Amino acid sequence: MTTPKTSARAVVLLSGGMDSAVVLAMARAQGFDCYALSVSYGQRHGSELHAAARVASALGAITHKVVAVDLRAIGGSALTDDIAVPEHGGVGIPVTYVPARNTIMLSIALGWAEVLAARDLFCGGNAVDYSGYPDCRPAFIDAFARLGNLATKAGIEGQGLRVHAPLMTMTKADIARAGVRLGVDFSLTVSCYQADAEGRACGHCDACRLRAQGFVAANIADPTRYVPQSL
Amino acid sequence: MTTPKTSARAVVLLSGGMDSAVVLAMARAQGFDCYALSVSYGQRHGSELHAAARVASALGAITHKVVAVDLRAIGGSALTDDIAVPEHGGVGIPVTYVPARNTIMLSIALGWAEVLAARDLFCGGNAVDYSGYPDCRPAFIDAFARLGNLATKAGIEGQGLRVHAPLMTMTKADIARAGVRLGVDFSLTVSCYQADAEGRACGHCDACRLRAQGFVAANIADPTRYVPQSL
Repeated sequence: MTTPKTSARAVVLLSGGMDSAVVLAMARAQGFDCYALSVSYGQRHGSELHAAARVASALGAITHKVVAVDLRAIGGSALTDDIAVPEHGGVGIPVTYVPARNTIMLSIALGWAEVLAARDLFCGGNAVDYSGYPDCRPAFIDAFARLGNLATKAGIEGQGLRVHAPLMTMTKADIARAGVRLGVDFSLTVSCYQADAEGRACGHCDACRLRAQGFVAANIADPTRYVPQSL
Repeated sequence: MTTPKTSARAVVLLSGGMDSAVVLAMARAQGFDCYALSVSYGQRHGSELHAAARVASALGAITHKVVAVDLRAIGGSALTDDIAVPEHGGVGIPVTYVPARNTIMLSIALGWAEVLAARDLFCGGNAVDYSGYPDCRPAFIDAFARLGNLATKAGIEGQGLRVHAPLMTMTKADIARAGVRLGVDFSLTVSCYQADAEGRACGHCDACRLRAQGFVAANIADPTRYVPQSL
């Protein structure tokens, strides 16, 4: 935890899932005025966006904005296309990988940060659970910060842009514990790749499995609402 | 002009304006199978998108895709907001600058390139006429290529991604001449920041002025269709 800042603005990418809720809580704990941003990219799990709005409100974000970008148009992922969501793990880059998703989401966050004169971006990139995703690695985050500094007025004016990925080296159990410590109500969050309209989780997909294992490993009661048939 | 390649795929950002039409013609002349991409970001000049479709077809793109991202949601530009478009030049970063626009457009192109297994991106970045735009500089293009290599499967697999900005150091007159040499029909293109529904240009905005000056300097008859009152 770095020294609290007074009324510095930060743009925080918020998916509605467990990880980014903890990131928002961390940014708030560091004293940032947080502008929460969700990117609606045609994902199947639209209930994540409703969860994001609830999380933003519960954790005291100044505002929550949803920007739509239709990544279904370019295809290539089980999260946007008619491809089955995996329920059994696997090796390599998973079919749930959305091409360039994190690059696109950070780019939109960068644009909003410029409008807000914010110099801090927070995202939930994590190299532990998502090692198969190329855009969840420390080198990617560093390269984005470098790009952002070249791409914007802030960079030209030499004020500098910081990209924070505070979960990068944390396990799911670490993230669960950090969230509890910071008062995150995980029952508000939706991580499932195929949650139903009420935000209830399937309990079977890779995202559900990782999340449930995290609560078990952290010895925290799992507050997730599951669809009845999966109980 | 580099050595022609056989059936290598390239994603080409195509705005419907003069510059990106020339970029598409250059990519075709280099032998690429071109996948033209327009990003609809809530810009006022929607007739640009119709122009892009016509240009893509005329120059033999394999396909033309439009991806919508609603940058009006983040605001901050005369091209998406209710701010007057300038008609008199100016210094510094112009109000027509859309925050992080080129980063966002290249990010979407990167995602599509990954789906297509294309390793070449083409964009119209130009440091001569748009010196006020931070994301139109060679260092920005280089940083994006670096990021793209870290962000994607292609990078992980070491095949490499190239980002081409062939207009970077060309004047508008150079671009006009190159287009004529490559058979670009500039009457199909729309550069005006506030073109009317039929794609006719105002003749007054900065984009119109730059374009008209380019044709004059190149000694090429201006094929632009202007709205009658501006003749």
